[in-house]
Amino acid sequence: MSDTQTVARYKVHFMPDDVAVTVNRGDNLLSIALAAGVHINASCGGNGLCKTCKVKLSSGDVDGGGQEKLSAEEYDQGIRLACQSLILSDLIVIIPPESRLDKAVQADERKKSAGLAASAWRFNPPIKKYYLDLPPATLKDNANDLFRLMWGLKQSYDLHDIPINFDVIRKLPFALREKDWKVTVTTTVISSRPHTKTKITPKIINVEPGDTRDRLYALAIDVGTTTVCAQLLDLNRGKVTAETITFNKQISYGADVITRIAYSQKPGGLKKLQQVVVDSINIVIDELLKQSGVDRHDICQITVAGNPTMQHLLLGLDPKYIRLAPYTPNANFVPSVKAADLGIKLGEQVYVFTFPSISSYVGGDIVSGVISCGMHQTKKLTLYIDIGTNGEIVIGNADWMATASCSAGPAFEGGGIKHGMIAVKGAIEDFAFDPLTMEPHIKTIAGVPPRGICGSGLINTVAELLEYGLLAQNGKFNTSVFSPRIREGEDGFEYILAHAPETQIGRDIVITEVDIDNLIRAKAAMYAGCHTLSHSVSIDIADFEQVILAGNFGNSLNIERAITIGLLPDIPRERFAFIGNGSLSGARLVNFSNDMLNAARKVAQMMTNIELSENNDFNNNYVAALFLPHTDGRLFPSVMEKLSSSKNNSRSK
Amino acid sequence: MSDTQTVARYKVHFMPDDVAVTVNRGDNLLSIALAAGVHINASCGGNGLCKTCKVKLSSGDVDGGGQEKLSAEEYDQGIRLACQSLILSDLIVIIPPESRLDKAVQADERKKSAGLAASAWRFNPPIKKYYLDLPPATLKDNANDLFRLMWGLKQSYDLHDIPINFDVIRKLPFALREKDWKVTVTTTVISSRPHTKTKITPKIINVEPGDTRDRLYALAIDVGTTTVCAQLLDLNRGKVTAETITFNKQISYGADVITRIAYSQKPGGLKKLQQVVVDSINIVIDELLKQSGVDRHDICQITVAGNPTMQHLLLGLDPKYIRLAPYTPNANFVPSVKAADLGIKLGEQVYVFTFPSISSYVGGDIVSGVISCGMHQTKKLTLYIDIGTNGEIVIGNADWMATASCSAGPAFEGGGIKHGMIAVKGAIEDFAFDPLTMEPHIKTIAGVPPRGICGSGLINTVAELLEYGLLAQNGKFNTSVFSPRIREGEDGFEYILAHAPETQIGRDIVITEVDIDNLIRAKAAMYAGCHTLSHSVSIDIADFEQVILAGNFGNSLNIERAITIGLLPDIPRERFAFIGNGSLSGARLVNFSNDMLNAARKVAQMMTNIELSENNDFNNNYVAALFLPHTDGRLFPSVMEKLSSSKNNSRSK
Repeated sequence: MSDTQTVARYKVHFMPDDVAVTVNRGDNLLSIALAAGVHINASCGGNGLCKTCKVKLSSGDVDGGGQEKLSAEEYDQGIRLACQSLILSDLIVIIPPESRLDKAVQADERKKSAGLAASAWRFNPPIKKYYLDLPPATLKDNANDLFRLMWGLKQSYDLHDIPINFDVIRKLPFALREKDWKVTVTTTVISSRPHTKTKITPKIINVEPGDTRDRLYALAIDVGTTTVCAQLLDLNRGKVTAETITFNKQISYGADVITRIAYSQKPGGLKKLQQVVVDSINIVIDELLKQSGVDRHDICQITVAGNPTMQHLLLGLDPKYIRLAPYTPNANFVPSVKAADLGIKLGEQVYVFTFPSISSYVGGDIVSGVISCGMHQTKKLTLYIDIGTNGEIVIGNADWMATASCSAGPAFEGGGIKHGMIAVKGAIEDFAFDPLTMEPHIKTIAGVPPRGICGSGLINTVAELLEYGLLAQNGKFNTSVFSPRIREGEDGFEYILAHAPETQIGRDIVITEVDIDNLIRAKAAMYAGCHTLSHSVSIDIADFEQVILAGNFGNSLNIERAITIGLLPDIPRERFAFIGNGSLSGARLVNFSNDMLNAARKVAQMMTNIELSENNDFNNNYVAALFLPHTDGRLFPSVMEKLSSSKNNSRSK
Repeated sequence: MSDTQTVARYKVHFMPDDVAVTVNRGDNLLSIALAAGVHINASCGGNGLCKTCKVKLSSGDVDGGGQEKLSAEEYDQGIRLACQSLILSDLIVIIPPESRLDKAVQADERKKSAGLAASAWRFNPPIKKYYLDLPPATLKDNANDLFRLMWGLKQSYDLHDIPINFDVIRKLPFALREKDWKVTVTTTVISSRPHTKTKITPKIINVEPGDTRDRLYALAIDVGTTTVCAQLLDLNRGKVTAETITFNKQISYGADVITRIAYSQKPGGLKKLQQVVVDSINIVIDELLKQSGVDRHDICQITVAGNPTMQHLLLGLDPKYIRLAPYTPNANFVPSVKAADLGIKLGEQVYVFTFPSISSYVGGDIVSGVISCGMHQTKKLTLYIDIGTNGEIVIGNADWMATASCSAGPAFEGGGIKHGMIAVKGAIEDFAFDPLTMEPHIKTIAGVPPRGICGSGLINTVAELLEYGLLAQNGKFNTSVFSPRIREGEDGFEYILAHAPETQIGRDIVITEVDIDNLIRAKAAMYAGCHTLSHSVSIDIADFEQVILAGNFGNSLNIERAITIGLLPDIPRERFAFIGNGSLSGARLVNFSNDMLNAARKVAQMMTNIELSENNDFNNNYVAALFLPHTDGRLFPSVMEKLSSSKNNSRSK
């Protein structure tokens, strides 16, 4: 009789986590692992379909194990599907790397590793959840609730004496009792110190009733002068759950950082600018939640990268002295602040981590981009260029870095361009002539009828017009060449990219000489910046072993065409890699890996800033670059050769 | 010509601070020391009057030095008055201990050391100010403002990589530039961790333009169930600048912690109770500032000690489970919180440190009292009794401590007593019969006409009435003894302490049988608590080598009379020491000494709590003690002898 009530108990030891638990005979191995806080992938939810939960038995045996889904070789090696395994004995279970991390992370990183620019990092989010099933308080054990929580963290996770936020203490009695002394504790290791020497210990930022470990999300946000780009990240699965972009509402108060700073000095200006960028962030959050169906309360952390002015304004720091000589930022490092304190509509416990900055014009977005491309890990002499309203350049490698910034204006993000727009659905991102008919082929993002033109579209169009001789090297239309699409408009000559009936906006979409002039100024500033910074440390542009391009261009920055217009140097094409929005990538990676968070702080400390704003070389280089591709054709030999070749000549016939 | 422009430069090395500075010939030694952050007392402000700034020259010489104010012996030993010394050479200056700390601190502590109960501690406030004269930002050195500040702290004070609060960063640019890059930085080492194992590093909580080092004040506050007592402390001079007391406005919502907790569970109740105790604190702050003329912004820190319910309510923590079995507090440790967040009207940078607690009914006030009397430093077996609305008892010594609490009711603080009042001006604090005329002599606080009677007055009166036979051991008036002052009133028989014309209130001040009954219940609970706790660890009350009494009685708790009524055990009188408001003393000491702050955390961790509330021994002991002095006269041999002696008998004749 009593036999039927006795269930055998076995010990299961998970490696390399080194977590041991005692379980009942017949328990499911995957469930046991999850309950013990040991992560095993299980994309299909434990139905034996996805085969992501493979583990290896080092000793002991299980019932089932998914033999029919494994190769004979695997099975013989002790490989089992955890979700299909019922425990029959003491076990030592080895969880192989591929089961420890969702495939999505690996795929994402494998894709990047295929190119030049990829960081090596391990999945180790700075924010973590710990599940506790605590013994209830009794008269014999009526320790205070906080002590019980701390005791549990020590017993179950060997976490000792970690700091705890006051508001967590305040809600603790109710969290503990709501689900019968079962709670989930959230910790983060986000820093309150400027330097990297001191080890950062985790602190407790939240406690929730029950087991909420499966809901752990974070936001990565790039706050640009023109746009706010954001990703919703699933920290359990290491993947991007949703992604969106919107305009930075501060645009209404000035197109560039200088006019924003000027506005911030008006009465109420700083508060207003903070409020509207927070509005923009709240808009992207709403959109990400809508896309994903994730609950607002399950977002546990935000990382934000932006240029120094953007980060100052978001935090409500006065950027006054960024604009005034000698150009001192308030702070290059700011401890994490509560999102709710800034007006961001997320849980009270959520902190905002902003990237450390370098100077008044080289900010957290650059630090973020540099770590995202692995420049801090390579020996290769690297040129990193972030193309945007403010252009930033970093040169160096793992051993040293120097940086400079230059004001390019908003053309690369579609600003100051008649039909300019950001790189979203409906933006013309590519342009090419049919060599026979000379009719333009335009390509829009998502393939829908065009609404306007984004930065990459602009570069591609100008390069193509130049190559086909419709545009002269001074940026003016070659009116001696007949084209039915060239006409005189309000802003001088313009080229019709799409006729009204083909568009979403019901008007002709054109590119004007004013647009082209803005693009030339922008590319001239970028090129002059690279040239001046390199020469300041006696490096010739041709010496760079890799050139990393970042910028919010969508997926289609065409290196060849960017060289054609003189934005990028005319060096072997295989040295270039385009990483897209590097700032956003870095903001994502620090959510996935605490190592990357530390790398960001180290990179910020190692960079030397070179001021270009009062530099004569820069001014000379800038003026010389106000031409397509450059006034000194010898710097762009392949472009000059091309411009004198068939396409161009064919039109001149 | 050029000679007159050359000023000789000398090196001055201060010991034991080990601070070296380079100065000009003729500089004043005291000014140099202060500028270098080396503290030398100078009570008279550097006028050569107070002779507190004596230093010893180990090498080198000065002009002046105050020879006429020093003995020949002193002068020969190299003693000089720093304020009268002009530097003439390189110097090694030794600052003797008596010049390192204001005399006031020493006097205060010397006074205490004369008695049994005094803590040994060194003057080392957890909050400190550092003065910086920073190099201005230039184009060649345009580091961010935060970096400049951190660099200065490292250069001048060897402070590395310390955390800084976000709001300090935010105001930094303006603080730096307001007084030409001269600022004062405030740091504190107040903790955010429950345990003592981890070293607490200082953090920056404020920055002010110019040199504000001479203005560094703190508040020590005892938040009692009935009263709020506070001292304003000058942390430069280690002295109490002002002191005051007021009722805890929560009294309107219940006389004891249980009724307060009940009120807190009503809608809005917790918020209301928090608000009114904060009101009371704001009242004492206003009064302290008025008394002292100190500026509100120069208060840099608050330490608060109170029982667990008082600390919960002040912090807005829900005390719900303190009242419900198994009696679990929300937290026995709470990180420091911003005073402004609680509604306390002080600068944004001010933190409130609340003492760690032990259990639901033994709180930070007890931990504070224990460290103030040095119980944690002695080998003597000690009984510590805090007499108040809630009575708490601690037994043990430096090696171990056990504690218990019992509800005494508010009688000791004048609560539930017809003319009861707290121990302030006009309260009857002492009472004695003229042995010849049998007319009572009453003594009031400050010697003004009486307004009511405080706890000590009540004890003294009941003891005297008992000794003179006007009161029977059961607490009823002995109506067989004639006294023109005994009459029947609304609440049964009563004794007239002062007739209406002699009072401030224009009514007879009386003590009633109901008052006496309340006092008996209160003293019975205290005595039963001591008895039960001692016996629970097999200690006889007679074994205690010292008995420390704390309580808010003003200066006149009469040990002999407290024994007479059976409040205190009948053991040799020289073992008793009355320390007054120990809770307030401890709150003062942690402001003066970081060591005491650490001691408080250690004491809180070492105490074992014994629950009396469901303890049968306690109930039996309580009932047995509902008599004057006790139903078991053998426990009070000297009292029994006294009661059967002359005074008593003389009346019975």
